[in-house]
Amino acid sequence: MAEVVQNKKIVLRHYVTVFPTESDFEVVTGETVSLKVPEGSGAVLVKNLYLSCDPYMRGRMTKHEDPSYVSDFTPGSAIVGYGVVRVVHSGKPNIAEGDLFWGMTGWEEYTLIENPESLFKIKYNDLPLSYYTGLLGMPGFTAAVGFHEICSPQKGEYVFVSAASGAVGQLVGQFAKLMGCYVVGSAGSDEKVELLKNKLGFEEAFNYKKETDLKAALKRYFPEGIDIYFENVGGAMLDAVLANMRMNGRIAACGMISQYNLEKPEGVHNLFYLTTKRIRMQGFLVFDHFHKYPEFEDRVAQYVREGKIFYLEDIAEGLESAPAALIGLFSGRNVGKQLVAVSRE
Amino acid sequence: MAEVVQNKKIVLRHYVTVFPTESDFEVVTGETVSLKVPEGSGAVLVKNLYLSCDPYMRGRMTKHEDPSYVSDFTPGSAIVGYGVVRVVHSGKPNIAEGDLFWGMTGWEEYTLIENPESLFKIKYNDLPLSYYTGLLGMPGFTAAVGFHEICSPQKGEYVFVSAASGAVGQLVGQFAKLMGCYVVGSAGSDEKVELLKNKLGFEEAFNYKKETDLKAALKRYFPEGIDIYFENVGGAMLDAVLANMRMNGRIAACGMISQYNLEKPEGVHNLFYLTTKRIRMQGFLVFDHFHKYPEFEDRVAQYVREGKIFYLEDIAEGLESAPAALIGLFSGRNVGKQLVAVSRE
Repeated sequence: MAEVVQNKKIVLRHYVTVFPTESDFEVVTGETVSLKVPEGSGAVLVKNLYLSCDPYMRGRMTKHEDPSYVSDFTPGSAIVGYGVVRVVHSGKPNIAEGDLFWGMTGWEEYTLIENPESLFKIKYNDLPLSYYTGLLGMPGFTAAVGFHEICSPQKGEYVFVSAASGAVGQLVGQFAKLMGCYVVGSAGSDEKVELLKNKLGFEEAFNYKKETDLKAALKRYFPEGIDIYFENVGGAMLDAVLANMRMNGRIAACGMISQYNLEKPEGVHNLFYLTTKRIRMQGFLVFDHFHKYPEFEDRVAQYVREGKIFYLEDIAEGLESAPAALIGLFSGRNVGKQLVAVSRE
Repeated sequence: MAEVVQNKKIVLRHYVTVFPTESDFEVVTGETVSLKVPEGSGAVLVKNLYLSCDPYMRGRMTKHEDPSYVSDFTPGSAIVGYGVVRVVHSGKPNIAEGDLFWGMTGWEEYTLIENPESLFKIKYNDLPLSYYTGLLGMPGFTAAVGFHEICSPQKGEYVFVSAASGAVGQLVGQFAKLMGCYVVGSAGSDEKVELLKNKLGFEEAFNYKKETDLKAALKRYFPEGIDIYFENVGGAMLDAVLANMRMNGRIAACGMISQYNLEKPEGVHNLFYLTTKRIRMQGFLVFDHFHKYPEFEDRVAQYVREGKIFYLEDIAEGLESAPAALIGLFSGRNVGKQLVAVSRE
């Protein structure tokens, strides 16, 4: 007889239209789960160790007529997102109890994963396991793909990163430094600005909330203009950047977090600079590039061991803290990669 | 003693901030020009035959703190633009009287061109000379570069062209058809729509002024979405297109004529689709590609002879008609490539 245990979970109560609040979520207790996969099943039953809070999840909290690259969440069911998991029981011959993976799981204590092929086996456990929600997981790989594949960087180029202390931005800046670029970041607090300059090796950083004229601020930090912009925020910052781009500049459109909670996104007025400055602005999704992940994992793990990369994490403790942690992304409450530690064992 | 003749010219009276009118220009008579280049000079003295009216010229009519790829016009001096010219006297051993060129010249009867290296020798005079202001000149080459180099087209793709009956748009559509794409264009009158469908071979065309919901209109013409958008107008049309793009779509940002006379360009709200649909939006300037012009001239001249390309021209007669012709671009008065015939001999 399979052991059955309590399985606390976080569900979305209802779809959200503007800024999400904790009351849009519910912590559901009292449900149970069997710690064995059903007889004959190819699923795995995992214990969730770390859960990742990522800005793209905001899109899934709204009902879309025509969903884009991810489906909308199902109210009443556990939130779905990236996480680090340990296998408790496996219906797959090539997956064993105790194996560690990262990939899509549920915001709950235990999850039955029907398609374990979607999971990534964790190769290095000499590094903090939580890194597989950030540095060595989807956000880190996003930074690498976006910077190296989309931005076509050259040594000595001028690179600007918005949301620069976040899960992705802090790595874009460090990858750019490793390539010999000049890197400036923007963030939303003086504390983050200090970290960017003193911990993460950015040449300069500024608090965008203290700037009344973003265009002038960028002109100050980039008197010769910006070659590469790694776009994480959208809106007014994008307009200011377009005015400061150099000829043949490149913009990687990774995300636009400043826009996700607006009923109608802000208008961007300076797009004609795309033509006059021959700018390439390119959107990308990390999902298209996962075949290159193993090479990334090896390379970046080595950087960490050699002290060439530093990673800031903001760890919320316990599943109950997950809704506030997720919502905090949109007010910039987190300092570094936001994740939730559900269990450390 | 060199012959001296009258030289009528069109000058800009003053810089313009919003919609230009004929009173912003002046027809200056009474000035004279020598029909010989100065002794020892490497210049050429040319007679201007056809002058080109192009939307990018609007930018030069405004004073910029920080001019982009072209300088601002100088009020009081002859307007500068592309034209077809015949050499009257040459200070260059490799250029002879009677030679035909296209390139930058003045809006006047005769122009002393100090840097004849900037001119393109006209290779084919079995075709109408006026084509070298359009089909075989800068706009035609813009269409070819923008479509073939920037849009990365594939046979069978869905292509949308705005300002589709204009100097550039009509060719983008025809180049796309020659590649086996499905092509729809938008234009600003029913007459233009008819020409697009019946003369230029577009599968479909619509009058954007009659559509109250551009997004819905595009959905109607592209139920499966747009792979390639050749952007000539900007603003609301771009927003509608972004909502209708397919995954991995490409947008060539050639121009944004709907925005040139606004003090502040319209806001574009749908840029997040760049990310969710992995769209590449790329600006370009034809000037960067002129080394490939000779191959283009050969290929397109042959298309014309074979009847594979058709070109609509709107020819204003006489230098005095040039200001109205130029201004007419911004209200869409022209049907096809707008040019001015200064002299046909």
